[in-house]
Amino acid sequence: MKKFFSKSILGEIDVLRNVNREVRLAGNTFGRLFRVTTWGESHGPALGAVIDGCPPGIAIAAEEIQKDLDRRRPGKALTSPRGEPDRVEILSGVFEGVTTGTPISLIIYNRDVRSGDYSEISRLYRPGHADLTYEQKYGIRDWRGGGRSSARETAARVAAGAVARKFLELRGISVRACTLALAGVECSEFDPNQIEKNSLYCPDASAARKMETRLKELREAGDSAGGIVGIYAKGCPPGLGEPVFDKLDARLAAAIMSIGAVKGIEIGEGFRVADLSGSQNNDPMTPEGYESNHAGGILGGLSTGMEIVIRAAVKPIPSISLPQKTVDDQGNPTEIRIKGRHDISAIPRIIPVCEAMTLLVLADFALHPHLS
Amino acid sequence: MKKFFSKSILGEIDVLRNVNREVRLAGNTFGRLFRVTTWGESHGPALGAVIDGCPPGIAIAAEEIQKDLDRRRPGKALTSPRGEPDRVEILSGVFEGVTTGTPISLIIYNRDVRSGDYSEISRLYRPGHADLTYEQKYGIRDWRGGGRSSARETAARVAAGAVARKFLELRGISVRACTLALAGVECSEFDPNQIEKNSLYCPDASAARKMETRLKELREAGDSAGGIVGIYAKGCPPGLGEPVFDKLDARLAAAIMSIGAVKGIEIGEGFRVADLSGSQNNDPMTPEGYESNHAGGILGGLSTGMEIVIRAAVKPIPSISLPQKTVDDQGNPTEIRIKGRHDISAIPRIIPVCEAMTLLVLADFALHPHLS
Amino acid sequence: MKKFFSKSILGEIDVLRNVNREVRLAGNTFGRLFRVTTWGESHGPALGAVIDGCPPGIAIAAEEIQKDLDRRRPGKALTSPRGEPDRVEILSGVFEGVTTGTPISLIIYNRDVRSGDYSEISRLYRPGHADLTYEQKYGIRDWRGGGRSSARETAARVAAGAVARKFLELRGISVRACTLALAGVECSEFDPNQIEKNSLYCPDASAARKMETRLKELREAGDSAGGIVGIYAKGCPPGLGEPVFDKLDARLAAAIMSIGAVKGIEIGEGFRVADLSGSQNNDPMTPEGYESNHAGGILGGLSTGMEIVIRAAVKPIPSISLPQKTVDDQGNPTEIRIKGRHDISAIPRIIPVCEAMTLLVLADFALHPHLS
Amino acid sequence: MKKFFSKSILGEIDVLRNVNREVRLAGNTFGRLFRVTTWGESHGPALGAVIDGCPPGIAIAAEEIQKDLDRRRPGKALTSPRGEPDRVEILSGVFEGVTTGTPISLIIYNRDVRSGDYSEISRLYRPGHADLTYEQKYGIRDWRGGGRSSARETAARVAAGAVARKFLELRGISVRACTLALAGVECSEFDPNQIEKNSLYCPDASAARKMETRLKELREAGDSAGGIVGIYAKGCPPGLGEPVFDKLDARLAAAIMSIGAVKGIEIGEGFRVADLSGSQNNDPMTPEGYESNHAGGILGGLSTGMEIVIRAAVKPIPSISLPQKTVDDQGNPTEIRIKGRHDISAIPRIIPVCEAMTLLVLADFALHPHLS
Repeated sequence: MKKFFSKSILGEIDVLRNVNREVRLAGNTFGRLFRVTTWGESHGPALGAVIDGCPPGIAIAAEEIQKDLDRRRPGKALTSPRGEPDRVEILSGVFEGVTTGTPISLIIYNRDVRSGDYSEISRLYRPGHADLTYEQKYGIRDWRGGGRSSARETAARVAAGAVARKFLELRGISVRACTLALAGVECSEFDPNQIEKNSLYCPDASAARKMETRLKELREAGDSAGGIVGIYAKGCPPGLGEPVFDKLDARLAAAIMSIGAVKGIEIGEGFRVADLSGSQNNDPMTPEGYESNHAGGILGGLSTGMEIVIRAAVKPIPSISLPQKTVDDQGNPTEIRIKGRHDISAIPRIIPVCEAMTLLVLADFALHPHLS
Repeated sequence: MKKFFSKSILGEIDVLRNVNREVRLAGNTFGRLFRVTTWGESHGPALGAVIDGCPPGIAIAAEEIQKDLDRRRPGKALTSPRGEPDRVEILSGVFEGVTTGTPISLIIYNRDVRSGDYSEISRLYRPGHADLTYEQKYGIRDWRGGGRSSARETAARVAAGAVARKFLELRGISVRACTLALAGVECSEFDPNQIEKNSLYCPDASAARKMETRLKELREAGDSAGGIVGIYAKGCPPGLGEPVFDKLDARLAAAIMSIGAVKGIEIGEGFRVADLSGSQNNDPMTPEGYESNHAGGILGGLSTGMEIVIRAAVKPIPSISLPQKTVDDQGNPTEIRIKGRHDISAIPRIIPVCEAMTLLVLADFALHPHLS
Repeated sequence: MKKFFSKSILGEIDVLRNVNREVRLAGNTFGRLFRVTTWGESHGPALGAVIDGCPPGIAIAAEEIQKDLDRRRPGKALTSPRGEPDRVEILSGVFEGVTTGTPISLIIYNRDVRSGDYSEISRLYRPGHADLTYEQKYGIRDWRGGGRSSARETAARVAAGAVARKFLELRGISVRACTLALAGVECSEFDPNQIEKNSLYCPDASAARKMETRLKELREAGDSAGGIVGIYAKGCPPGLGEPVFDKLDARLAAAIMSIGAVKGIEIGEGFRVADLSGSQNNDPMTPEGYESNHAGGILGGLSTGMEIVIRAAVKPIPSISLPQKTVDDQGNPTEIRIKGRHDISAIPRIIPVCEAMTLLVLADFALHPHLS
Repeated sequence: MKKFFSKSILGEIDVLRNVNREVRLAGNTFGRLFRVTTWGESHGPALGAVIDGCPPGIAIAAEEIQKDLDRRRPGKALTSPRGEPDRVEILSGVFEGVTTGTPISLIIYNRDVRSGDYSEISRLYRPGHADLTYEQKYGIRDWRGGGRSSARETAARVAAGAVARKFLELRGISVRACTLALAGVECSEFDPNQIEKNSLYCPDASAARKMETRLKELREAGDSAGGIVGIYAKGCPPGLGEPVFDKLDARLAAAIMSIGAVKGIEIGEGFRVADLSGSQNNDPMTPEGYESNHAGGILGGLSTGMEIVIRAAVKPIPSISLPQKTVDDQGNPTEIRIKGRHDISAIPRIIPVCEAMTLLVLADFALHPHLS
């Protein structure tokens, strides 16, 4: 059997490590008119975002961006105890409290960074992580906490999304996400008022309690949990989206799927359409509007004016303290137990990230003129 | 209750119909290095694709592109009886049978176009279609068969995908799609040898027969069916994809979701991750390679070298002959029964389209140098 | 001395000729919102353009595009006797005489193509042409009339520019170009009424006659001539352009310099600024407007509302019948005398091409909302 | 006569000043594969650049970037006495002294910022500056030193260019610029060894002395000077550039013209081609290479392998202390005398900026694979 990660292949990587590799990564910009470029590593000095294309004249303060960042902040019981203060600063593009139309540079300095936690994994590849794929692509990797592939990168997305939120508010467009399933527990009711009342942003108070119990069991077992997030956009006028390749649903799918932990996306009925007939799935039209919203607010890649409904599947955090089979950087088989300050689930911290990516897509399309 | 599609709103659209609208549609290009621009309407003179960025030196003939187009061709019993010959011609970019590195222009003239079939629907909006959203966006729409929003547009994608297939073959990368579920019938086994043996491209011969039966019942009932397509890419080296926004899974999601009928996307375990723990979902690593492929061949947005596994949810064809509630272009409530030559399901004709979009993504990333 | 074009280097090219080269050419799209992709070779079946992003609701007919193409058509005495009929057809994006917002595909079939004329040069590199650089880049070239590097490619630009012209007319923006110098003869007066009255589009009737005389002498001598084109845009509102890299002057410079024969660009005073002081070059501002237009209508990369003034230097046609030193594809020194139907100067046929590129830039920026 | 800057128009601007304007500026990114996004205002807290697409494995330190920045630093006698320390820091993308392939974030904090200097001009529009065009475009402007339209923005370009320089050094490509004319004085000889020996980066020592004398006279007169910069790239392999719109000369023209003060660009013979015949302008080809370089190293938009030769016309600094006619923000005629710390000429500080933009273009194209 071919040795997939054999010493010879890993050795070749090693040789290439200090060589000028022409492999490049130019995928850190999102959007065409409302464009966001993010930068920064988990354990570097800072991370940030540059927003190019935000309309001038929008009042915005660092405190407003901070609010969204705080929602992403690790909680106490269920999420990583790493105390990330994540203070955002605005470095450009805002003059006398108002955007000027020039690039808005946002920065978050990394604090409480202890690289020591990660020294062991500099020689091992963590299963379920991008350690090996990054090394295979670039011939080099920043092993401190995953470097650029760390979920910490999403802090910059949330900061940029908060600016998009301010712009969209002026258009009457709002986005909220919540937890629909976690650790094998599904919501059986949807009460929007419950969402901000529990630490899991769950619309079903009873389900939330069961989820917390289940998460505690998994933590004790050294394991982790996956779940499902629902994302909802209200107030979109008809016509957002750009056929045929930049359809609204295509862009939303790319946006949400670009979040590390996401493995599935549904719009409206999603995978349930496989069991529906046309007469069941079509939304009848009346002078008062669409009678139902199986389409999830998008037809032909354009918003219909109905609520946009997205569901995202979130995989369990790959960092677990249970022993796992892996290889070291010499290609030898070994075992890894991941210590350190890790969440058990990407939920709920992924909630504001899902909102941010949706906001960025809508802000981009909202800048395209449209009829309604 | 607010009249959503009231005469006043539709009247406003009418006024704007002959006015210069600054609403534009510049979303007809896909890819960054291997770039494809498609054009053409269902009932216009022709449709086509321009490929910019295809490497020089690749032998390609129109007949090879034709093969993929023929797989998209309507069959006899189950799909639309419209006899689309769809002959593709190469107009540029190929000299003495070999690509030169200049843009490859592909054209398919529309034949057998009977606009008469669509005259009634010029005044009605078809539920589940983009008729109204296009009109709301552009203030004008080509109502002949849906114009640009017709599934016919995907013929150009398939033609472009065939060129990508030729390029990727030289790299040892291949893509195949098949039917995993249709009309409520799911495959219970996966025999790759069966796929090309039945007209539904189904890997389970017994399921295929049940699907055909169920489709016939739906046709008699004037209804239509949804299903699930599986898409598989083999031979990808590790490292394809560009973090953080142009991750391989993000681009694949956008590509597949940009196909009109698709409402959901999964990579690897997809929505099943919600019920898995980290220890179940992580793929253990050994010197021989990954022991499993829950990740579906992608980690951190980069290909792992394992098979890439995608599932797409395909909604039932919205054109049904059963009566449906709708409104006319004056905002009056009415009923529509869609006649004409329509498929009952987008499956199996969507199969080569799913392949084409996957091929375009992989060709684009394969042009990025990478280590392996 | 190193043999620059030695047999060994050219031999290497030869080896690579049938090999899959990963060298790609994805630079055939221009613009961001009003996007044009051109394709086609000098002696292929056809050439064309796809316009993506043209607003819907604009009345346009093939005849209107034809008018601009006809201005690019070879004349009788001074330009190439090749009779190019260049009939343009609209294949998509226009419904009932009006743009719909979907891609507009324009096609011009090549007629009167005699590849025989070019058989000798398939083995020689023409000085001043791109024969060798294309072969060095792609490892392959279409030697029939220069293939993609032929000036014939600009026919597609003119066709696309004509659509931009229609859109800009609705905004009150117009673009005209003319001949300011040719074959060593400079205009000494500028009478706009003369421009359309002579075949050289020259604003000085007396200079035009001298230019024609000089061109005839050069034709008899087997030589060719360079010149200067002036391009003028009227009616631009203030604020067109996108700092800091997509400034209006930066985009115009790229647009005009992308025309094969152009070797220099000036905005307003151009190179004359080197001899001016600030007090001479600044345009004083009064309540009635700018008192002068040294800036050529652009300040800080944004249009001022004054006329936009561009000058372009056009090199002499490199195809001359005088003998020239060159090498063959084996690296041997030899001599070439270029026969066939060639112009003596790119002027005046380049005039509508300069207009087209300017129109494409302005249409792109005019789609960006702006205050005035 | 229509009042161009009448109170009513300026009043309208005033009304719009605090309104959400959908005018956006998304032109702050340059390049496709080696992509640079700059941000920051003259008197904001900081300015910076994010480089996305730099290959991994390149050794780079802040000190190396600092060297290029220091060449842009104001000198003593001839340039602005504002003491800009301009210390650059690397915030991401470099790990253990080597690039990782992730975005490189560079930051330069603004120090010595005295906004008081600019309070008067907050109500006046400076002739030759972008004050009014920015206000007309965005409805708002940061009047502190020109904000984003200040030449200070180019510090970020120089920092990014220094990273491109490191990458290109590994390919054997180097770029140098120098002063060819200034304040009406032209170089009559070209001695490369002189360039770094005088503060004007002038290849003619005698001309440099005359330039300095002339600049002092202009300073005393309260006026300013324009000039010409020469930019030279050595070591480029044949084949850089992407026909037909992203030709090497087109991209270089856009790059250099995007520098605020530049009003003209020439490649090779530039405007001199107008007086040359084909037999004079064509570069003969021999087995030893091209016999001359009239083309300036570019044919058909692709590098030939010869030195790339560019000339740029630099306008006189518009900030002069001589009185100038202008209008205030109420549309009243008035007079302005610009005080404060200003250069008399953009030369020599523009020299490293011209180099940086050329380096960015070449780095971008060098990432495209090519044959030689």
